[in-house]
Amino acid sequence: MGLKFEIDKKVGKSRLGRLITKHGVVNTPAFMPVGTCGTVKAMLPESVAATGAEILLGNTYHLMLRPGADLVEKMGGLHKFMNWDKPILTDSGGFQVMSLSGLRKLKEDGVTFRSHVDGTKFFLSPEESMKIQYKLDSNITMCLDECTPYPSTYEDCAKSMRMSMRWAKRSKEAFIDRDGYGIFGIQQGNVYKDLRAESAEELKKIGFDGYAIGGLAIGEGQEKMFEVLDYAPDMLPEDKPRYLMGVGRPDDIVGAVLRGVDMFDCVMPTRSGRTAQAFTKYGPINIRNARHREDPRPLEEGCDCPLCSHYSRAYLHHLHKCNEILGVMLLTWHNIRYYERLMQGLRNAIKNDTLDQYVAEFYAGQQQGDIEEL
Amino acid sequence: MGLKFEIDKKVGKSRLGRLITKHGVVNTPAFMPVGTCGTVKAMLPESVAATGAEILLGNTYHLMLRPGADLVEKMGGLHKFMNWDKPILTDSGGFQVMSLSGLRKLKEDGVTFRSHVDGTKFFLSPEESMKIQYKLDSNITMCLDECTPYPSTYEDCAKSMRMSMRWAKRSKEAFIDRDGYGIFGIQQGNVYKDLRAESAEELKKIGFDGYAIGGLAIGEGQEKMFEVLDYAPDMLPEDKPRYLMGVGRPDDIVGAVLRGVDMFDCVMPTRSGRTAQAFTKYGPINIRNARHREDPRPLEEGCDCPLCSHYSRAYLHHLHKCNEILGVMLLTWHNIRYYERLMQGLRNAIKNDTLDQYVAEFYAGQQQGDIEEL
Repeated sequence: MGLKFEIDKKVGKSRLGRLITKHGVVNTPAFMPVGTCGTVKAMLPESVAATGAEILLGNTYHLMLRPGADLVEKMGGLHKFMNWDKPILTDSGGFQVMSLSGLRKLKEDGVTFRSHVDGTKFFLSPEESMKIQYKLDSNITMCLDECTPYPSTYEDCAKSMRMSMRWAKRSKEAFIDRDGYGIFGIQQGNVYKDLRAESAEELKKIGFDGYAIGGLAIGEGQEKMFEVLDYAPDMLPEDKPRYLMGVGRPDDIVGAVLRGVDMFDCVMPTRSGRTAQAFTKYGPINIRNARHREDPRPLEEGCDCPLCSHYSRAYLHHLHKCNEILGVMLLTWHNIRYYERLMQGLRNAIKNDTLDQYVAEFYAGQQQGDIEEL
Repeated sequence: MGLKFEIDKKVGKSRLGRLITKHGVVNTPAFMPVGTCGTVKAMLPESVAATGAEILLGNTYHLMLRPGADLVEKMGGLHKFMNWDKPILTDSGGFQVMSLSGLRKLKEDGVTFRSHVDGTKFFLSPEESMKIQYKLDSNITMCLDECTPYPSTYEDCAKSMRMSMRWAKRSKEAFIDRDGYGIFGIQQGNVYKDLRAESAEELKKIGFDGYAIGGLAIGEGQEKMFEVLDYAPDMLPEDKPRYLMGVGRPDDIVGAVLRGVDMFDCVMPTRSGRTAQAFTKYGPINIRNARHREDPRPLEEGCDCPLCSHYSRAYLHHLHKCNEILGVMLLTWHNIRYYERLMQGLRNAIKNDTLDQYVAEFYAGQQQGDIEEL
């Protein structure tokens, strides 16, 4: 029952592993592209797979609103509905609901909120979130939790974290265990080390298939985030996957892998694909910038994505200036491929004992970039 | 020099042919998807090719504005710029410029206009249009002409058509002949038979690689259009391809093939892909309609496009309700594939002497459809 996780090698705190689910194996460290509404925006699922992505993230909040969990279940689950037969992780819906300030009401039992689409009233509790994620047929179910903003007082974070831990227990109890499916707990505690420790202890008492680090990348900045990551992953079980939620930029991911994190998700590569921001080994590039107008070179030398294989920067610039969908399609593809190449690079470097060198080259490359343009 | 056109078979007025260009063969009757700004909207070029399309239409007006013909030439021509190595036909820019009422000034020499994008002033003449289409490396260059609106008086149509014929002569003189490249004249004359005849005679005197029928599908309705098509194609040379510009709906195309037309272009399949309108053998379908919400069936049974092979109507409905780009991508692909299947069906039917039966089945299918929804 549950999920299997095997760690093949460690270098420093970094881990090379394999998470085994009903729908296939996820090699870690892994990046999960985000498929908010049952689609990775502007990508065919076979194209997502072609980038090397082995797992997607689906958003419970968006899917419960549209098309609704019952409909997805009726259509055979999210894998079948969206034509993605590899693993899927779903979040609990909590993060999006908590962000609906003014439209939601939080109690111990759960949270009542109104849909941002049409104002329909919904109720989300740990039990309800488990039910929805079950209907979606998610391979990795996330506990419902509350995420405190940054900055928050120690007292607020303690109170919120303790409620999240009670919700974690209710989530685990409501989760229906099946072979190749699992549930992850979520560590909270904001930037307070003793709260992170208390949260980790509570989660370990309950027992999960994996452990997420929640409540980071919410405005505290990379330095502060790395301070927390210097200790937070170590508080979680050594033999289970660790997932840093909603992170992040390429250098955030590299820093977190060095600190012992195994899994990531972020809208960055897909959203940036829609706003003309490219991720490359030279650092980020804004393809709308006029200096690309007549540039016959590919976006990134050596990248094997369709964009870099067949098109010039001049063409991509033209597409984005004209707001053409193909510009979004090609750049989204490249950006996800960039992220997946980064993860493959990190995995290979752990395997081949070349992690220091790989990371040094990564940072050297990024500094040649166009960060000032963004 | 020029283009070769071979007619393999005739059934009634319908013709099965092959147009041979520098970039490959186009089997006729042929439909050309429209790649306005150097991209068939929401499609990778390899996906366009996978639909069976053997030739694209590019818009001189849009490309001269953005990114500019000089830039496209510098990048190796439109084929290379947009990664499409099959034939390309470009229009002359005239039709779009003439539509810029208030922003353009027409004289015998040419037309001065302002860009709809940024107000920049441009001048387009037959010579200038030839130069631009040369820089784009278009396989089939279209003469610059003026298209009268519907309805127009006989006098206005006569005057306009005669200027278009003078422009046709100037276009031909300015065109640089190369092997595998050609230029098409455009018959005008609106719905007036003797003007159509006069126009055809003028064009034949000049001599072209192919002949277009212009000035139809501009609001006169299918009945009126078919009345004109009952005679207009017959006025054009038997041994050259005939191209009905900007047409049309599937039943327009079927009717025109029966009347001896060989080539078509239309934004219908691509534009409809963006507005949730599907073309199917059952007739048109509006996928946003609530009755598709829980429908597990493919959009069209028997269609081999990715949409119909892997997704339900419920999923496509969901994507369009959420304004997801993937909904546009999948439906555009289906719609173009539908058009290309229709053309393949017509070609096979001519070849196999089953055209009557094919056309009868086409109309029977269309009447089962959802036309009332659109």
